[in-house]
Amino acid sequence: MQFRNFKMVSYVGYGRGAFNQLDEIIAPHRKAGAPMIFLLDHFFDNGHALASRVPLRGNDKVIFADVTYEPKTTQVDKLAAELKAEFGTVSGVIGIGGGSVMDLAKAVSLMLNNPGSSADYQGWDLVKFPGVYKVGVPTLSGTGAEVSRTTVLTGPTRKLGMNSDFTPYDQILLDPELTKDAPANQRFYTGMDCYIHCIESLTGTYLNEFSKSYGDKALDLCREVFLSGKEWTNEDDDKLMMASYAGGMSIAYSQVGVAHAVSYGLSYLLGTKHGIGNCIVMNHIGEYYPEGVTAFKQMVAQNNIHIPEGICAGLSDEQFETMMNVSLGMKPLWENALGKNWEAIMTREKLRALYEKL
Amino acid sequence: MQFRNFKMVSYVGYGRGAFNQLDEIIAPHRKAGAPMIFLLDHFFDNGHALASRVPLRGNDKVIFADVTYEPKTTQVDKLAAELKAEFGTVSGVIGIGGGSVMDLAKAVSLMLNNPGSSADYQGWDLVKFPGVYKVGVPTLSGTGAEVSRTTVLTGPTRKLGMNSDFTPYDQILLDPELTKDAPANQRFYTGMDCYIHCIESLTGTYLNEFSKSYGDKALDLCREVFLSGKEWTNEDDDKLMMASYAGGMSIAYSQVGVAHAVSYGLSYLLGTKHGIGNCIVMNHIGEYYPEGVTAFKQMVAQNNIHIPEGICAGLSDEQFETMMNVSLGMKPLWENALGKNWEAIMTREKLRALYEKL
Repeated sequence: MQFRNFKMVSYVGYGRGAFNQLDEIIAPHRKAGAPMIFLLDHFFDNGHALASRVPLRGNDKVIFADVTYEPKTTQVDKLAAELKAEFGTVSGVIGIGGGSVMDLAKAVSLMLNNPGSSADYQGWDLVKFPGVYKVGVPTLSGTGAEVSRTTVLTGPTRKLGMNSDFTPYDQILLDPELTKDAPANQRFYTGMDCYIHCIESLTGTYLNEFSKSYGDKALDLCREVFLSGKEWTNEDDDKLMMASYAGGMSIAYSQVGVAHAVSYGLSYLLGTKHGIGNCIVMNHIGEYYPEGVTAFKQMVAQNNIHIPEGICAGLSDEQFETMMNVSLGMKPLWENALGKNWEAIMTREKLRALYEKL
Repeated sequence: MQFRNFKMVSYVGYGRGAFNQLDEIIAPHRKAGAPMIFLLDHFFDNGHALASRVPLRGNDKVIFADVTYEPKTTQVDKLAAELKAEFGTVSGVIGIGGGSVMDLAKAVSLMLNNPGSSADYQGWDLVKFPGVYKVGVPTLSGTGAEVSRTTVLTGPTRKLGMNSDFTPYDQILLDPELTKDAPANQRFYTGMDCYIHCIESLTGTYLNEFSKSYGDKALDLCREVFLSGKEWTNEDDDKLMMASYAGGMSIAYSQVGVAHAVSYGLSYLLGTKHGIGNCIVMNHIGEYYPEGVTAFKQMVAQNNIHIPEGICAGLSDEQFETMMNVSLGMKPLWENALGKNWEAIMTREKLRALYEKL
């Protein structure tokens, strides 16, 4: 098809305090004897108040997911296998956390109903069966994972999602109150995932009015919250959560660009997390996004954020080659950013020089 | 629940020319022997090119719907009964037209699977069973009916929709090219449905950031297209279609206000269509929406639009009473516009004086 037919999340709840409705929302989806599995970011382990608010019933289970590194296919397979072994079937999987937990929960839901390894489904439209009922509750704003049709996973041979119409959540619950405890640096890195995506897609060669209107809105909201010059407020959390949602929706008919293509290399080789990786790259690509990078640097300064430097110092030639191979493999991203002739513009020499600066 | 859990349309396709994908999109939903029913606005009867592009297969049927007046429960019941008598079951209903056809197609889909009369389901969450597969293809932009969970119907005792989670479309196909033949006055009246809704909701007392971000976007797009000072272009059609979609989404956590409450009275008594009715009222309510009405009048002037005047001249006291009763019955609209104390503000005398001006 020329135009993608975009699968939407089935139900959306938004509101400050909406987390209190989770029990009521999931109730009709409970099957006798089959538990709900709450997959929480390990950030909420060790007595965080949010963990005690999880609406546990019967044999429901809370699992704290270690997302120090981004989700791996092995981690997904292990979680799904353990749940099958312990319960046979489950009623649903509820992911509560940032982008990594969002993606992990989607992938585990799918692997509870699909045979083999999640690595078998890294790609487009390979997933065979719908997953179990799945709910996304973001506690960080910016990734857009709450509305995307992918789950970014690091597998044995590649970092690629399970992209399918079965992947989007059945339900998302957007409660900006849940983001209030995020450390300022983390909030910024994750928020920049949205901002940088918008800069890349809105200046790209793939775009139509659907994605443009969502992207423009997300960009406006990011600017409002990160360039206000005022202290962070509840209203900023409200807006950033909508920026994330709108940024995620804008992906329907657009594509990311240079920052993402380069940061995928960092993440593959060094395990750099997506949000901070994009920021590290964005700091050095004013050549491609002059206005976007200028505003990015203002945001960094105004919000007193630390962006790491020198993370590629001391890497071997072989390691640089690995990053470059991963990055240059993202052809649609480069084409979106630089046009059909991108290979003549982003030569291996130029990309190597860029990585050396990071 | 404190915060509505909003049922989304399942699939969205957007693109100039996307109508050409309709055949491919509906193919997996065809059931052996059961036709697809294409419900077209009578505007496309008598040889309009769009009618010849409908992807008919097997025993599929095209029905041209007379939407001179807004949909009635009797019209819905008759269509559903005729389809059941002719085919037993159908594979799906595809509504192609403006807001009336959008609503009619949703209602017919529901009544093919629910017993009794559509009048039995006018209200909230009364519909018992999902309808047959339904697809919405708007050919006018502004109503938001493509994403709403209602179908506005005039019944034996009231004008009220079948509001339910079964009501939204399974699929919408947004092709701005389909709106290019709309007469300028009609395009304006329907576009103003979106603009006026945004003015009412954004200044109202019911609102959160979800609805605000969608409403702000829809309002920006309406201003861009109707206050550009330039000739209408394809890009304006693209934008207005997104304004309609965003305006419809913003309904999730917001409410309309004075223009809608008053125009419902006109529509009930005089059959005034929704878009033009809102415009007729908007012309006279600068007291409640000073900035919104000023910009509205600029739009009317810039686009050389005729807004009827004097439509209530010669009505009887009894007729005024009927309109006032319908209008004052819309309590949530008045409360949203004027606050909890609205009855002290919008007295019967004041409302009568307003109707007399229209």
